[in-house]
Amino acid sequence: MTDISDADQRHTEKMQRIQTARKKMMASKQGGEKGLIIVHTGNGKGKSSSGFGMIMRAIGHDMPCAVVQFIKGNWDTGEKRILTRHFADQCQFYTMGEGFTWDTQDRQRDIAAATAAWEKAKDLIRDPNIALVLLDEINIAIRYDYLDPDEVADFLLTEKPPMTHVVLTGRHAKPVLIEAADLVSEMTEVKHPFKSQGIVAQKGVEF
Amino acid sequence: MTDISDADQRHTEKMQRIQTARKKMMASKQGGEKGLIIVHTGNGKGKSSSGFGMIMRAIGHDMPCAVVQFIKGNWDTGEKRILTRHFADQCQFYTMGEGFTWDTQDRQRDIAAATAAWEKAKDLIRDPNIALVLLDEINIAIRYDYLDPDEVADFLLTEKPPMTHVVLTGRHAKPVLIEAADLVSEMTEVKHPFKSQGIVAQKGVEF
Repeated sequence: MTDISDADQRHTEKMQRIQTARKKMMASKQGGEKGLIIVHTGNGKGKSSSGFGMIMRAIGHDMPCAVVQFIKGNWDTGEKRILTRHFADQCQFYTMGEGFTWDTQDRQRDIAAATAAWEKAKDLIRDPNIALVLLDEINIAIRYDYLDPDEVADFLLTEKPPMTHVVLTGRHAKPVLIEAADLVSEMTEVKHPFKSQGIVAQKGVEF
Repeated sequence: MTDISDADQRHTEKMQRIQTARKKMMASKQGGEKGLIIVHTGNGKGKSSSGFGMIMRAIGHDMPCAVVQFIKGNWDTGEKRILTRHFADQCQFYTMGEGFTWDTQDRQRDIAAATAAWEKAKDLIRDPNIALVLLDEINIAIRYDYLDPDEVADFLLTEKPPMTHVVLTGRHAKPVLIEAADLVSEMTEVKHPFKSQGIVAQKGVEF
């Protein structure tokens, strides 16, 4: 009887070891790396600059990446300068919008520009060699009904390669995009100098 | 009587024009450019990457800048790589922390590292040639009582040159720093893949 009891004991211990190893394996499988759909929204500062910071991090890790700016048009931004001057090989950069709608005053032209930007974005996202695609201010283009949020969400969920990260920025992100996203961060304005002190937008801070 | 009435009318119009011009002048004076104290806090993603994006923007505009990382220690981050490899002339980069406290397990060593980082930060902020200083994760060092928030706020309000921007990042920003800041953005976690899907921190996204 002692022998059988020892055998039972050994079996139990073995099963516990296997179970532990299996749990560990499952945990590492459940985790691991995955291309994320990331949304930065809210009325506070940091949505675009954070997306741009991720682009620079990716370049630092030698990951090919791409930026499509949906709204900023021909602004002479710091991000445009640094990416086009220093990292044109690592990061494709497209500025498809022609400025805010209150600049252009031409809704059909805005829609055409946003549509062209989205077509370019789809090509970039489909390219499995590109690790990270930033769709800067796409939420604004969607908010103005220049793009269909359902189409954007559907494309991301069905055609994005599994390891590609896509970052969508801009206030008023639509619920369908929040739903599609893996990671959503809302930037909330706690205090802003434009309103409280009348400070203008400044180089290095806002653009 | 008609003449006087016309004169009154002209006078009123003239006064209105002057008043409008004066308001405009005052508005432009009240606004203008100013070095800002900027705080990025909250439990969501984007605090450090947004600060880092501002650094890259500043470099894009040829503005000298500096980064002091209070917590990240010897992590091989994308921001460290890109700044030290490509922009050492434009951006001084210091990593003074030796990693999170649960790595070092030595509170006195953490305090010494944070204090040294803060002394370096003060030197950088006092240098009027530096346009933007990022104090990455300083809020965490303060939260762990490695630094005195009153001293940090007092220094920024009394010794920061008027045109220098300083960005403080990290969750749990102390009220005294919120009070001292010109611009505060709170990053709120709406959805996070680490918790919901067990995804690990990834290159280009988190570091």
